[in-house]
Amino acid sequence: MTETIKRIEPRTLKGFRDYPPALMIPREKVLETARQVYRAHGFAPIDTPALEYAEILTGKGGEESDRLIYQFKDHGDRQVALRFDLTVPFARFAAIHVPKIGTPFKRYAMGPVWRGENTSHGRYREFWQCDFDTIGTTSNAADIEVALVIHALFTALGLDRFEIRINNRLVLNGLLAEYGLADQSVALLRALDKLPKIGMEAVLDEMAGYGVPREGGQKVLELASLKGESAAILDQLATAHPGNATLMEGVNRLRELFKVADACGLPSERFRLDLSIARGLDYYTGTIYETFLLDMPSIGSVCSGGRYDNLAGLYTSQKLPGVGASLGVDRLLAALEEMGKLTSRETPAEILVTQFDGSRLADYYRMAFNLRQAGFAVEVYPEPKKIGQQLQYAEKRGFKLAVIAGPDELSRGDWKLKNLAARTEETFTAETLASGVAKALESANGA
Amino acid sequence: MTETIKRIEPRTLKGFRDYPPALMIPREKVLETARQVYRAHGFAPIDTPALEYAEILTGKGGEESDRLIYQFKDHGDRQVALRFDLTVPFARFAAIHVPKIGTPFKRYAMGPVWRGENTSHGRYREFWQCDFDTIGTTSNAADIEVALVIHALFTALGLDRFEIRINNRLVLNGLLAEYGLADQSVALLRALDKLPKIGMEAVLDEMAGYGVPREGGQKVLELASLKGESAAILDQLATAHPGNATLMEGVNRLRELFKVADACGLPSERFRLDLSIARGLDYYTGTIYETFLLDMPSIGSVCSGGRYDNLAGLYTSQKLPGVGASLGVDRLLAALEEMGKLTSRETPAEILVTQFDGSRLADYYRMAFNLRQAGFAVEVYPEPKKIGQQLQYAEKRGFKLAVIAGPDELSRGDWKLKNLAARTEETFTAETLASGVAKALESANGA
Repeated sequence: MTETIKRIEPRTLKGFRDYPPALMIPREKVLETARQVYRAHGFAPIDTPALEYAEILTGKGGEESDRLIYQFKDHGDRQVALRFDLTVPFARFAAIHVPKIGTPFKRYAMGPVWRGENTSHGRYREFWQCDFDTIGTTSNAADIEVALVIHALFTALGLDRFEIRINNRLVLNGLLAEYGLADQSVALLRALDKLPKIGMEAVLDEMAGYGVPREGGQKVLELASLKGESAAILDQLATAHPGNATLMEGVNRLRELFKVADACGLPSERFRLDLSIARGLDYYTGTIYETFLLDMPSIGSVCSGGRYDNLAGLYTSQKLPGVGASLGVDRLLAALEEMGKLTSRETPAEILVTQFDGSRLADYYRMAFNLRQAGFAVEVYPEPKKIGQQLQYAEKRGFKLAVIAGPDELSRGDWKLKNLAARTEETFTAETLASGVAKALESANGA
Repeated sequence: MTETIKRIEPRTLKGFRDYPPALMIPREKVLETARQVYRAHGFAPIDTPALEYAEILTGKGGEESDRLIYQFKDHGDRQVALRFDLTVPFARFAAIHVPKIGTPFKRYAMGPVWRGENTSHGRYREFWQCDFDTIGTTSNAADIEVALVIHALFTALGLDRFEIRINNRLVLNGLLAEYGLADQSVALLRALDKLPKIGMEAVLDEMAGYGVPREGGQKVLELASLKGESAAILDQLATAHPGNATLMEGVNRLRELFKVADACGLPSERFRLDLSIARGLDYYTGTIYETFLLDMPSIGSVCSGGRYDNLAGLYTSQKLPGVGASLGVDRLLAALEEMGKLTSRETPAEILVTQFDGSRLADYYRMAFNLRQAGFAVEVYPEPKKIGQQLQYAEKRGFKLAVIAGPDELSRGDWKLKNLAARTEETFTAETLASGVAKALESANGA
């Protein structure tokens, strides 16, 4: 009997990608690390649906961002949409749940979001976000904590060459008010944001185009370009503008942040005052954070955020001020890969128990079971193929150690342990194998 | 200036729900446990997009299941669909990636899936699946491992009153062939599946309706109802049908499974032969697994799976036999909740550092930092509110301990530790607080 099968071409949509183990193992590591760090600081996990009423998601953005949203009519003829970030669903969540949960409320959320964007510049239409926020308090303690969490996160990821750039919008706002430029603040900040790209003269020209006098523009640029020790700059500002309440509020909040980071014994060079950063123009109102990898500055900020006045005004009259940041998971992974900090292992297990004699499966599985009880991740090769083939498989997948026992070894109660990188071999008993594995892993991972 | 704000009603779609911390903390715990157990057995994580070409997802199911799929046209006028399970995307993934990755390939995947189902009976339209599979081998070692993984998973979840019911389709298939009923096997199995619900006589009537002679039906029912020790039943079958190659293949595979579980020292009552289970009629071809919580039998199987002949035949000519199972995350959580095994904590942190004196934030944060370095999860209350209010917050959220230090304590270098459940209080120094916390947590968690 012949069978005619009409096959479907296996393919993914443009802008979407699979995560095979070599990509997924590092992504899980980053997410797990973030989860641990967020939890260690008292942030609690929440999740919201991927699909929402379209009006919930399209309410906030402009026409341009609305165009990127995946929208359709569901089975019940409702207009629904896939979330394009985790902030808008969090605002909707907060409007419903915070009255019951109470404030302060500290949450983290991790998950995919979808945007029908142009896929040039390596952009994907599905990517992960990983946010944490404290809402329901204007206390500077929450602002300070965001910087401490970012520091703890990157340290836990095994990175040390990074820098958290911190600003407070109140400093610039106070200054602009003093110069009579408050009305032009958005235009000014937009021009200021381009400083690293287009240079001082071009920024001044652009500011002039918005009606900012050249002298005022220059003062703002001078402020944004102040270099040196954070505390010294803040003292300088405080001395020059003692009566400027808005500016002084920003200065004092920043001072306290640097003081607390210092009290925790954290390296001061990782917390840098940067009066030129002004991200999220229409949204952030206080402290602002960006995080740069010193060896990959070109990739931009990999963890950013800030303080906002009101999270959920579109959905509730309860005012919910807050502060938080978002880890750019995919951008960070791309950077780690480029920096050679990702291993190319395709298995989460480090030990392969080979199968020499198919009739002794019970022995192999009991040994694997014992090694797992001792805390190791262990795979048993499923077929009694030639040992050479099994070892080839082990090396290709990135196992560190292979356990081998043929009939002779089993009759003597011996277990051979092969270090795949060092190509060395030692023999143990059933009782001593686990400690042999621990030592061999230590040397394999240290190498 | 008055502002008129048109608010949007904050609501979720029918069949969708938010996960606030009280629900999300247990879900994360289940997923993390599954992740650890899968990895410890050498399964590697993969992920696939939520959206696929509709033809990929609709290729397999019948019309009925296709109707449940969320489908729409994307910005590029492609017909796209949200995945309704993790198996079909895995088959598509395997067709693309396994030629490069090689076999055997062991993967796990966790994530939400979407079905536009009727929401009665507490069904949700978005829910999580959590699958693991070994593909590219027909070896019984892979079948055995699935049972061991399920056992390790439920043990790691802190459960001991569970039972893995195991069958092999080959036993029944062999028997049906011997009785000349091979052609009626699907109808027979469908009737057999109803045995617990409708009873023996009704099943026989239904079988007769499919053209199965009453005598043949009775023999099948007798087999399915055999009770007793697994090994004894298998011996009985082997003695009665020694020349039935298909049945003997099934018997031998089952024998080896029980033998290996026994060799690993696992309680034999947790691995039970059940010749009546026949799930996944058109899909599974060998070993079949169901997992029941002995205290919640009504909820049905919470972890099920089996062996199949060919995963990805719709997308590739490469034959990929495999075996695996899927943890019903939401069903398990519902069971744990009903069994009172979920705590209602709303924070992942156990310790709240209260803020007595707002000017001493650096001291509180340094202490929190030190406690985190010692491995504890610690939240700092963000405002110097009345201590009573902060302690109320701590109790409501489920913190175990509160750390309190006012100006007097700080000047003496003292830190008070309050056990919130026991309502006891002890005083420590900055150096001894961490060990005091460790002891207090031990007693609080043991209580």
